[in-house]
Amino acid sequence: MAPVRNARVLFKDHPQDIGYPEPGQTTVYDDTQTIDPDNVQLHGGFLIKTLVLSIEPYVLSRMRPSFPLPYTIGAPITSFGVCIVVRTETDKVKVGDHLYGDLAFEEYTIRPSLDGLVVLDNKHNLPWSVFIGTAGMPGQTAYSGWKEFAHPKKDDIAFVTTGGGPVGSLVIQLAKAEGLKVISSAGSDDKVAFMKEIGADVAFNYKTTNMREVLAKEGPIDIFWDLVGGETLEAALDHANVGARFIECGMISGYFNGGAPVKNLWQLVVRDITMRGFVVTRTFPKYSEEFYATIPEKIAKGEIKCNEDVTNGLDKTDEVLLGVLKGKNKGKAVIRVADE
Amino acid sequence: MAPVRNARVLFKDHPQDIGYPEPGQTTVYDDTQTIDPDNVQLHGGFLIKTLVLSIEPYVLSRMRPSFPLPYTIGAPITSFGVCIVVRTETDKVKVGDHLYGDLAFEEYTIRPSLDGLVVLDNKHNLPWSVFIGTAGMPGQTAYSGWKEFAHPKKDDIAFVTTGGGPVGSLVIQLAKAEGLKVISSAGSDDKVAFMKEIGADVAFNYKTTNMREVLAKEGPIDIFWDLVGGETLEAALDHANVGARFIECGMISGYFNGGAPVKNLWQLVVRDITMRGFVVTRTFPKYSEEFYATIPEKIAKGEIKCNEDVTNGLDKTDEVLLGVLKGKNKGKAVIRVADE
Repeated sequence: MAPVRNARVLFKDHPQDIGYPEPGQTTVYDDTQTIDPDNVQLHGGFLIKTLVLSIEPYVLSRMRPSFPLPYTIGAPITSFGVCIVVRTETDKVKVGDHLYGDLAFEEYTIRPSLDGLVVLDNKHNLPWSVFIGTAGMPGQTAYSGWKEFAHPKKDDIAFVTTGGGPVGSLVIQLAKAEGLKVISSAGSDDKVAFMKEIGADVAFNYKTTNMREVLAKEGPIDIFWDLVGGETLEAALDHANVGARFIECGMISGYFNGGAPVKNLWQLVVRDITMRGFVVTRTFPKYSEEFYATIPEKIAKGEIKCNEDVTNGLDKTDEVLLGVLKGKNKGKAVIRVADE
Repeated sequence: MAPVRNARVLFKDHPQDIGYPEPGQTTVYDDTQTIDPDNVQLHGGFLIKTLVLSIEPYVLSRMRPSFPLPYTIGAPITSFGVCIVVRTETDKVKVGDHLYGDLAFEEYTIRPSLDGLVVLDNKHNLPWSVFIGTAGMPGQTAYSGWKEFAHPKKDDIAFVTTGGGPVGSLVIQLAKAEGLKVISSAGSDDKVAFMKEIGADVAFNYKTTNMREVLAKEGPIDIFWDLVGGETLEAALDHANVGARFIECGMISGYFNGGAPVKNLWQLVVRDITMRGFVVTRTFPKYSEEFYATIPEKIAKGEIKCNEDVTNGLDKTDEVLLGVLKGKNKGKAVIRVADE
């Protein structure tokens, strides 16, 4: 086999100040490199071909030097993805194995070892993209955060933000499985329709609906799943029940303005609220076994629904990221890099 | 006995906007009323003579109509206090009993029942003022909040705000009893000296010392006892350890500006922080028995130290409150209304 293109998405520069990344400035698509899959030296490792990559707000975080695991300027950005092994010099993997983990945004990568990767056992024959969505890191986040911190009780009311995304949509379905009333918000009517489809009792578009009126009518809330922060968090605090649990999973409203200030934290005191932030990598391991034993099967049976928005081609990376940050994606944003 | 003066502190008007109360405007001292202790009709209840009353930030909260239990305009303000029964028509109390509870700011009150009051058993012969300080609501707050939410572990570092007050100073002593390193802040050098006396490893005056530098050098912190909020809370978030517990007991920095905004709540997520607000009345009952079985005795033996700032006379109420809100008191602020 002759050398083939090995296109990459390189990290060029930090986003200006605290703003949105700028296509072509923050990252750059580079298709000048080639690779010879049959002959490239593997030094005892293995060669993978990237199939799907996940685009999520977390990618922006890693573009900032002050956040954990910042990207390296000049190197490909990385995110969760699924790849296939095309050649190997180690018996730790076989050709044809599908691997999941933090992958570089490039068509081919040589990996020295399985560090940071797991071999996927796709016994329910799910599309590989599901393993970066509801059966991947976002699903792990929803599942472990809910199991560890929600403490649902009969007649509780849950409010789930970004309910049209892969984290929020699984949270809605977990809350409904417990018999709770679920209020959920998202930024488009498409997402509102999806939230209703998966069982949300009250679903609204926060861009066109007054959130405080919804919460005043449908609350007070006992569980708040927060991916937004800022004014949304303030509204939730003002409409929380005594003893409410606030699960702080992300604060996208503060990503572009140095942190969206919250003025009414006093409500934490008055209402006996527990606010718990978490990072999935620390919370999930305890739940890994039960997650993989149940969630993929439920997805295969249609008992848990996913919502994807797939874009073809690494060259679309920057615009897909910008779309996600502005809430324009219709479901879990996936870059399909290659078919098998 | 002829009629005697029954001076009162009446709630006149809400503080302007969200500002400080204004002496003479927010409350007014009225000494025009008299009472005849021997002959006033008790209607089956009992007559109490007020001995000591507690002044704390909580009094300001109750001056605002939006807070729980707001005061009634034209009626005396109330706060925790200790009184003595001087006449009774019920056998629920005896003349000479000392009672603790939410008392009106007046020299004499007729109470119909023991509702909201408890009979004090002062077997260690403590000054009555202690029962509105370290052995009263502030101490209950410190004790139950610490026991319920601190989860101290070996080698943890605690950061205690307002460590010179009755809540913070007991928290310092509870943390030291667990063997923790304690950092504590207060607003005067007198209070810093007291915090050192009771065992704080690092004590500083936040008005003259850069808090972030202290935390950078002495942290990261595992337990944060917060009575301040705002910029202090922001500094604590930026210097917290992974898995830290933030106990939100009050947010005095936000009382005069509509709530001090906090911009970096994102740190809750990154650092797996639990932030727990609480109101003493809901948390304390579980600990009431062990509190009264241990704390008064330790105070009597000098194993737990208190710090009081006693002012004589109901007519000083408004200036003492203003002093507390501005941090000018030297210890637990007490109004001594009468001797027995």
